[in-house]
Amino acid sequence: MNIAIDLMGGDFAPENVIGGIKSFLSENRFDAKITGIGTQQAIDMAQNELGAFSNSLEWIVATQVIGMQEHPTKALKSKPDSSISTGFKLLAASKADAFISAGNTGAMMVGALYSIRTIPGVSRPGIGAYIPQENGNLALLIDVGLNADCKPENLTQFAILGSLFSKHILNIQEPRVALLNIGEEEGKGNILGQAVYPMLKENQKIHFTGNAEGRDLLKNKADVYVCDGFTGNVLLKFAESFYDIFQSHNISDEYLNKFNFEMYGGVPVLGVNKPVIIGHGISGTTAFNNMLQTAARMIENNFIQTVSDAFL
Amino acid sequence: MNIAIDLMGGDFAPENVIGGIKSFLSENRFDAKITGIGTQQAIDMAQNELGAFSNSLEWIVATQVIGMQEHPTKALKSKPDSSISTGFKLLAASKADAFISAGNTGAMMVGALYSIRTIPGVSRPGIGAYIPQENGNLALLIDVGLNADCKPENLTQFAILGSLFSKHILNIQEPRVALLNIGEEEGKGNILGQAVYPMLKENQKIHFTGNAEGRDLLKNKADVYVCDGFTGNVLLKFAESFYDIFQSHNISDEYLNKFNFEMYGGVPVLGVNKPVIIGHGISGTTAFNNMLQTAARMIENNFIQTVSDAFL
Repeated sequence: MNIAIDLMGGDFAPENVIGGIKSFLSENRFDAKITGIGTQQAIDMAQNELGAFSNSLEWIVATQVIGMQEHPTKALKSKPDSSISTGFKLLAASKADAFISAGNTGAMMVGALYSIRTIPGVSRPGIGAYIPQENGNLALLIDVGLNADCKPENLTQFAILGSLFSKHILNIQEPRVALLNIGEEEGKGNILGQAVYPMLKENQKIHFTGNAEGRDLLKNKADVYVCDGFTGNVLLKFAESFYDIFQSHNISDEYLNKFNFEMYGGVPVLGVNKPVIIGHGISGTTAFNNMLQTAARMIENNFIQTVSDAFL
Repeated sequence: MNIAIDLMGGDFAPENVIGGIKSFLSENRFDAKITGIGTQQAIDMAQNELGAFSNSLEWIVATQVIGMQEHPTKALKSKPDSSISTGFKLLAASKADAFISAGNTGAMMVGALYSIRTIPGVSRPGIGAYIPQENGNLALLIDVGLNADCKPENLTQFAILGSLFSKHILNIQEPRVALLNIGEEEGKGNILGQAVYPMLKENQKIHFTGNAEGRDLLKNKADVYVCDGFTGNVLLKFAESFYDIFQSHNISDEYLNKFNFEMYGGVPVLGVNKPVIIGHGISGTTAFNNMLQTAARMIENNFIQTVSDAFL
């Protein structure tokens, strides 16, 4: 396997990316090759730090970098030799099996949507985020921002994509899928929720358990919570801001500490034909290591094939 | 002024309702009359407890009670002599100036929508909830559940309603209004957000400051955060579930403690022609006192007239 990673992505790049690669390769991942993409300067620094692992590493120079605040579409167009553009080109040309970046989130989303192919049968890819459950489980919330407006069909597909990720990557045997909604019973909620409920109920590819309200999101009511990307994005960022407050107020609690995205690394784009993982801007060494682990697992388990089969 | 209150509403009724009335009247509110609505048994209990304040109290017997889990519309139809139905009848007949209940939330919403009139010019009333800001300010999130699907016009009206409540009841001089959205700049977000942004920007009745993301909700980016009732409801219940966790994990923090709804009592229905306040099921004595204070303030400040003038 060959995992491409953006050396320039994130607020503390390339140091933290390099640190993450080091941790990952130190854990005896002899089977994995990593392709680092970045400026010559970043590659020089990486080569210095990672000399012991040179057999597992490849480098590709990117002369441009997309800044965190740049307009995604414009930046991708005007910077064809940026590290993010290069990463997607490697994926498209099957020269890499996965791509990871903690750079400009919008550019990563646009790149995932338009630079590589969607798995046949998937109308719109979705982005899943981890929601730690109070009982210790790890649930997935999907979509958290790729699709601000959704049709019922999109939510049904997110349910399938999330279930497969939960089962094959998070090792949950029969993932319970809930529809994020207001009100508990069928027939409650907004127009989208009312329309998609019977579709989820009848879908044989998932184990649908009904509606979940905002208050249920942390309570292990499901393994996969399905929603439109607007609601998911607002919720995810709201939860992150709570975690910032826990940190700044010196609150230490085993469960609340799990809202530290570092523990998970980044969020996977599901429904595209190669694993793509989008890291948080402030990703640290642990986060990059975790993203590499997730990508490796997705490749090892042949996750894309599993998804393709489900959408045949 | 005459404030009607449902003695039967809430998980700990009528004890907590009675306790709240006692606290409120003990604070020298000689100008306020309170009409308690409940079963004969509840009224007997209240009269025993509140003997010292008999001059400020009136009682109306309701022979029926709507349970917390009953279907709102069906319950209101089949129980015309319930305490909630009676409260709205008092409002409709102008025999009370405000109505408070911590009973069946859905029945309170349906009652507010269909038993009393909307202020002329207001298409849809909205429900506002308090969101404590990290700097100590108290912001309002509107709508938190009355309107699962919204048109741009609805959001513009929530912005005006929220601004007026923030200014006249929460004493914020020039409330900043933000649109809850994904992405910061104009043109970002879902179809609803993209459509309403220019309308908010041009509206002379509010001080619009742009988009707020999920991460900004606690960060004093605005005094009024406007969103559709689906997103608002999910967010509010999610925040409440965080507070439950703070409690069960024995986390004590001055700021996080403010997510205790008890501090505010209940959420006001804005845009209807009488003050209506919906309490949380587990409201305690403090919550009922606070709801009475808010209702009194809305009546004293002639809040309904202020709203009517704004929508002329």
